[in-house]
Amino acid sequence: MLIVKKFGGTSVADKERIYNVARRIAEEYRKGNEVVVVLSAMGKQTDVLLSMAKDINPNASKREIDMLLVTGEQVSVALMAMALDTLGVPAVSLNAFQVAMHTTSNYGNARLKRIDTERIRNELENKRVVLVTGFQGVNKYDDYTTLGRGGSDTTAVALAAALRADACEIYTDVDGVYTADPRIVPGARKLNEITYDEMLEMATQGAGVLHNRSVEMAKKYGVQLVVRSSLNNSEGTVVKEVVKMEKMLVSGVACDKNAARIAVIGLEDKPGVAFKLFNHLANHNINVDMILQSVGRDGTKDISFTVKEDDIDEVVAILERHREGSLKCQHIDVEKDVAKVSIVGVGMMSHAGVAAKMFEALYDAGININMISTSEIRVTVLINEAHVEKAMNAIHEKFLLSQA
Amino acid sequence: MLIVKKFGGTSVADKERIYNVARRIAEEYRKGNEVVVVLSAMGKQTDVLLSMAKDINPNASKREIDMLLVTGEQVSVALMAMALDTLGVPAVSLNAFQVAMHTTSNYGNARLKRIDTERIRNELENKRVVLVTGFQGVNKYDDYTTLGRGGSDTTAVALAAALRADACEIYTDVDGVYTADPRIVPGARKLNEITYDEMLEMATQGAGVLHNRSVEMAKKYGVQLVVRSSLNNSEGTVVKEVVKMEKMLVSGVACDKNAARIAVIGLEDKPGVAFKLFNHLANHNINVDMILQSVGRDGTKDISFTVKEDDIDEVVAILERHREGSLKCQHIDVEKDVAKVSIVGVGMMSHAGVAAKMFEALYDAGININMISTSEIRVTVLINEAHVEKAMNAIHEKFLLSQA
Repeated sequence: MLIVKKFGGTSVADKERIYNVARRIAEEYRKGNEVVVVLSAMGKQTDVLLSMAKDINPNASKREIDMLLVTGEQVSVALMAMALDTLGVPAVSLNAFQVAMHTTSNYGNARLKRIDTERIRNELENKRVVLVTGFQGVNKYDDYTTLGRGGSDTTAVALAAALRADACEIYTDVDGVYTADPRIVPGARKLNEITYDEMLEMATQGAGVLHNRSVEMAKKYGVQLVVRSSLNNSEGTVVKEVVKMEKMLVSGVACDKNAARIAVIGLEDKPGVAFKLFNHLANHNINVDMILQSVGRDGTKDISFTVKEDDIDEVVAILERHREGSLKCQHIDVEKDVAKVSIVGVGMMSHAGVAAKMFEALYDAGININMISTSEIRVTVLINEAHVEKAMNAIHEKFLLSQA
Repeated sequence: MLIVKKFGGTSVADKERIYNVARRIAEEYRKGNEVVVVLSAMGKQTDVLLSMAKDINPNASKREIDMLLVTGEQVSVALMAMALDTLGVPAVSLNAFQVAMHTTSNYGNARLKRIDTERIRNELENKRVVLVTGFQGVNKYDDYTTLGRGGSDTTAVALAAALRADACEIYTDVDGVYTADPRIVPGARKLNEITYDEMLEMATQGAGVLHNRSVEMAKKYGVQLVVRSSLNNSEGTVVKEVVKMEKMLVSGVACDKNAARIAVIGLEDKPGVAFKLFNHLANHNINVDMILQSVGRDGTKDISFTVKEDDIDEVVAILERHREGSLKCQHIDVEKDVAKVSIVGVGMMSHAGVAAKMFEALYDAGININMISTSEIRVTVLINEAHVEKAMNAIHEKFLLSQA
């Protein structure tokens, strides 16, 4: 068996944890398996490096920031190789240049294009554990790039796909994927299985376990993922194409507090207004999430939408800039104290009334719904941020998610 | 003009110093020159990384140690690029992979074989300052190597040679090369010029200004070096093939306290004994410096020699191991409190009596000489470590080195 394992920064934060991980790797290796391990930078090292950069130059170029950041993972893999050596396990550390992790050229948020597997295959043939730096790549200019936050998950999945690995295990500080965040919903239950699509919706809607780009890639290449704890030996959650039929309509409830709502009131009611508005935002790489358009007073119309709360100042600045030109409107409302709550489940494709059941739960709990958006396997509502905990528990209870 | 500048770890130890260096680089760039800068790791970062490695695994493989250490210089060049950017100077940082610094394959102490200059030339043509990681290379296995301590000097000289640079400036925390260490000899004077050969002997005999391998390389490729202060704008010392004829016989006095003397007393007086002794040491990579063989009592012979004080325990262990076999002797004496004092100067090739003058100075100062060794342009004596200061001052005075 060829197994790809990924451990995050907290799993390699200090000597003791490095040895914990090393022992788990050694165990796998001693079973006779080929093992490829992807590591993140130790603990908060990426943040430390970023603040060094900020201190030198608050507007440092992304190319140089990537050059700086990639040292973090390189330290992790070298130290892990040393730890494995003391356990009698031959290992070799490789960075993005050595593997040849080809990415697109955009620094700070590159996408993996192609991975050369020759070096890794050679090292595996020589019975070595191969330790690969996560999160980083090399672009066509022979410069380092990084894959954005959470990019080590993507590195692991991409390696598993390229090597046709038998398993891809993502180790984290939780036991797996839960029906809801257990810190918010005490009755939340660990799922044994979840589909790619559900996981993708969960990840996009705020479940922090897996990076959504890595799930996308796993689905595309059919890489079976397991999300497991780095602290214990419990089974974890398997992410795959089809899961056993269960009676459950809904697999989980997710929330995302990093949301803000903007209402543009009194826009001219003529063709192209919505296009212009969202085109301005797209030109600045602002992701818009939920959108609602309604008829306003006196032949005008109103458009409301949500963006990440981090982007709100930029969004307002863009809108104000165009208010006298292509985006004439009466006023612009901003609401930051909102959060998205979503239910996700492949079951709802074949069952009517799932959304209604969610709304009923919220109504019973006395929670007002601001906006609604749906996909085939997801229903999301925008509510007041103060009601998130109550809402999630009410929905979780309504769908009886704590009972398997 | 194409100028290569090298700054050591203390010159980039913190934000303030990074900006000091950045301003010097900016000044050179604004004169219209092409500038290539070689940097070491920040402050004591190399030692910090080494102790992390030691903590994880005291016998870590050299391959993984190099993988770890090279991150130090990469952080320096990335931060320097950011600093130059704020000064309005376009800059790009490159590591050993990006430059393609080909070295021999031995980790921890590799030698540079070939440098690809294409990328650097392209960046210079695009009017960028090029910042290169010192001390590191890549071997034929596509693995990182390091050049050994002080290796950044070598990187700078090799780059200057490969790029046919007009100047190679080594920035350090002293003003240049002195006739003696000013901390020991208050009257020491800065030299305006020194030949490669003299500099090489000085470096080998303990003057810490330049790494001797870099001087060797500069001589081989005719790279004119300048040793200058990173703290002020004084002229520094030029290291080159031929210096202006001066009346001076001697360019400088150097001392090396990292020496120990071993006397192997009562060896059998038969052919091959000396060979066997030094062969055993060579097999353990022990460098032997001064050697003295004398006739002992009762048809035996005595061999004395010096090694680095750091190596002494290993040397004694090796000798003891062979004492019952190929190296029968009466006893082994070890003396750690010794130091080497050397005078260096091309002038002594054509002038007799230079050594005698040195011995006279020591005799006048009441200092006993243990051993003597000479080269064409150097005389070295081994004395008691306690007398180093007195000896150096006496010799410095005798040759009137404080008077230009």
